Amino acid sequence: MITNLTHDLLTKLEALLPEGTLREASPRYLEEPRAKWQGVAAAVAAPKTVEDVSTILRFATAHRIALIPYGGGTGLVGGQVTSSGTPLLLSLERMNTVREVHPSENVIVVEAGCTLQAVQDAAEQANRLFPLSIGSKGTAQIGGNLATNAGGINVLRYGNTRDLALGLEAVMPDGSVWNGLTRLRKDNTGYDIRNLLIGSEGTLGVITAAALKLFPRPAQTGTALFAVSSPEAALKLLARLRDIAGESISAFELLHRQGLEFVAETMPDQRLPWPDPPEWMVLTELGLARGPTPQALFEELFEVALEEGLADDGIIAQSEGQSAELWGLREAIPIANKNIGGISSHDISLPLSAIADFIPRATSALATHGDYRINCFGHLGDGNLHFNVYPPKGAQRSAYKEAASAVQDIVHDITVEMGGSFSAEHGLGRLKAADLERYGDPTKLAAMHSIKSALDPQGIMNPGAVLLTKS
Amino acid sequence: MITNLTHDLLTKLEALLPEGTLREASPRYLEEPRAKWQGVAAAVAAPKTVEDVSTILRFATAHRIALIPYGGGTGLVGGQVTSSGTPLLLSLERMNTVREVHPSENVIVVEAGCTLQAVQDAAEQANRLFPLSIGSKGTAQIGGNLATNAGGINVLRYGNTRDLALGLEAVMPDGSVWNGLTRLRKDNTGYDIRNLLIGSEGTLGVITAAALKLFPRPAQTGTALFAVSSPEAALKLLARLRDIAGESISAFELLHRQGLEFVAETMPDQRLPWPDPPEWMVLTELGLARGPTPQALFEELFEVALEEGLADDGIIAQSEGQSAELWGLREAIPIANKNIGGISSHDISLPLSAIADFIPRATSALATHGDYRINCFGHLGDGNLHFNVYPPKGAQRSAYKEAASAVQDIVHDITVEMGGSFSAEHGLGRLKAADLERYGDPTKLAAMHSIKSALDPQGIMNPGAVLLTKS
Repeated sequence: MITNLTHDLLTKLEALLPEGTLREASPRYLEEPRAKWQGVAAAVAAPKTVEDVSTILRFATAHRIALIPYGGGTGLVGGQVTSSGTPLLLSLERMNTVREVHPSENVIVVEAGCTLQAVQDAAEQANRLFPLSIGSKGTAQIGGNLATNAGGINVLRYGNTRDLALGLEAVMPDGSVWNGLTRLRKDNTGYDIRNLLIGSEGTLGVITAAALKLFPRPAQTGTALFAVSSPEAALKLLARLRDIAGESISAFELLHRQGLEFVAETMPDQRLPWPDPPEWMVLTELGLARGPTPQALFEELFEVALEEGLADDGIIAQSEGQSAELWGLREAIPIANKNIGGISSHDISLPLSAIADFIPRATSALATHGDYRINCFGHLGDGNLHFNVYPPKGAQRSAYKEAASAVQDIVHDITVEMGGSFSAEHGLGRLKAADLERYGDPTKLAAMHSIKSALDPQGIMNPGAVLLTKS
Repeated sequence: MITNLTHDLLTKLEALLPEGTLREASPRYLEEPRAKWQGVAAAVAAPKTVEDVSTILRFATAHRIALIPYGGGTGLVGGQVTSSGTPLLLSLERMNTVREVHPSENVIVVEAGCTLQAVQDAAEQANRLFPLSIGSKGTAQIGGNLATNAGGINVLRYGNTRDLALGLEAVMPDGSVWNGLTRLRKDNTGYDIRNLLIGSEGTLGVITAAALKLFPRPAQTGTALFAVSSPEAALKLLARLRDIAGESISAFELLHRQGLEFVAETMPDQRLPWPDPPEWMVLTELGLARGPTPQALFEELFEVALEEGLADDGIIAQSEGQSAELWGLREAIPIANKNIGGISSHDISLPLSAIADFIPRATSALATHGDYRINCFGHLGDGNLHFNVYPPKGAQRSAYKEAASAVQDIVHDITVEMGGSFSAEHGLGRLKAADLERYGDPTKLAAMHSIKSALDPQGIMNPGAVLLTKS
């Protein structure tokens, strides 16, 4: 159904748009972080206004041209690149204005092309917090964060990206504009189109701006790293910390020694907290209003943890510098992972009570299959693990190309069997569209196909992402 | 398109279901709290299992029978009653099992027919909090709360009903069952069907069970009532309380003297905090982990408020009994309102910064129109007001039947003009389906119609609610 975006059509589209909107598809638009896909595109459109986005979508629907919405290009599941056809890549990079800041309402209104860092900075200037936090925040754009419902380290306290959005401005495939930029905390006027677009990965429409929630900046924050005896102990530690600090836990991250070893192996300048790290660690942050300091609460926690045998060592940051150092280590792990070169990465979530069983079970299943190194880390408080599989030391990733899909199936099969999800925070993109067919609930899948056909009858929006295109 | 549910069809359906599932439509199913509609129904189906719900929906789709999903019947916008046709009323009352409680995960799995009170009680038994709180909690069912995305007094801290749901089990119009009862905090596997069903008021499918979030019970809670100088001062007081107590504010309710006068007039046994109440009051609650007591924080707040002229009197509850008394007063107001008999009630929300201007503006606009008493109260922290209009003392509500719709238009016009919503927490039902056509964004409305046609092509689900049926 999709037609080729010919030179003729491009010339026609160009005439409808301000000069400079259409560009050549330079290589940076066609690469993606995990180098699994080499993208193709006939051209890049970089509109500056919602009206121009509307013109482009109307034209694309009329001529059945495939559109690939593009944010910062940091997605990990290939949602932003396609290797087939002659699509038009729609980059929101020039729609990057912070439109409004309402400190008294705790609301900010931003365009889709703002980087996450820019949104965080604008919030900070108003003495507010925009809590979404992911490693790629300097490059990732808020439109892409919304399209993929990005997660990150503060979900435990503040929710996923969808939980941070109050209203959207978006363009539907037929070019019609939804002026849904409400700043309201409560609005029960009909179907939740906002949440339908959020997480749909550009397959139902294009988000051009959003009204987002801001939060008070906690009066005091503090960080601690604990050496825990097992993932099970880490979960018990989380329960104890909840007893002590209630809902003030901003982050609760599980780390495995393997990650620190990858850091030591590939990033020799990065300082490690222990010369010989324990097998399992927890990195956690509190953000408190008043009263006892985070340090005092962490000390209380550590005493309980020692007594119950949950943890036997720990570092409680005594300064912002120390805190930054601990978080720097956390941020180094994904970089070290990339340096090592993974066979298969898994962004999974599990019911909290299944995690302690899942880790040894998936580890043994993989041990039966081959000789691998596993770096299991992630957002334990959310039940979200990155269970990533690497070749043994000295071996090359390229030798494992054949094994990758079997490894993935082993991990995902166990995950789904234990009530978990095969995509917790990165989305489906093109990487996991087939997994949705394999593991997804058939009723939900049918509803998704119905909605896709209803809202994008020509199938122009990001074809091949999320839903496999029917042949 | 919809056909009559004849005696023949009822007999056929009866043969497909366990004995006792089909019942006569007794009067209680056909009334609603505001007595605006007199419902009709050919029969009531009260299935005990999701399989029976599936059988009913499959049958209804095959024979084009209108279905009205029915929870506790407490909805305020007529979503649960229709006055036309011969629909089948689908009551979830016998699906009222608490299926699972997972205290360590802070998750509870309940069937749709559980009352909100039953869910709260089950949470409390596990030393957890299910924070959704509305006046009708003893009767309202969680399925109805989900279908309408109910609000209430704790939204400020814990969100609307949709924010409390992790997973759903639901039956689609064709009878297919979505097994979406995930207990996961993060699950990015495709379109957000959960949020599409939540708030769709039974027009897209039937929610039969839900996995819901639980929270730690705050270690200390405290209540205070402040006499504030104006709604603007109340908003400033909220900002000061945020500085002092961060995110620990569980409720922040605006009250007007008119409400207390209605209580005094119609509920003489109810004690009032002041013999001559101030014009504007704020009732607020803190739930804290550790550290300073709520009383200490409220005292700090009161000193600041006195200094800044925001409040000049206040009552800080010193016991649970005193706290219950203050909340009892808040709960008396809607009952007193009902006793007085309103001309038109408005469940609206506004951007926080527009509220101080909205109240005098809407008040003067109504004063130009007629002689009314206004009771403006509600969930100030959420920007959600109940701006309800009553006849002058001594006059009868029935004399104002003609005026009601003009009064509503005045209030809703100003609300929408100031960036607000004409339905904040009660939904649209049948009361506001025409308002959606009048005030709703055309692009959103078109998307809603497309989705409705895609998921319920026969239009059997709650016809006339949310979307006007096209003639």
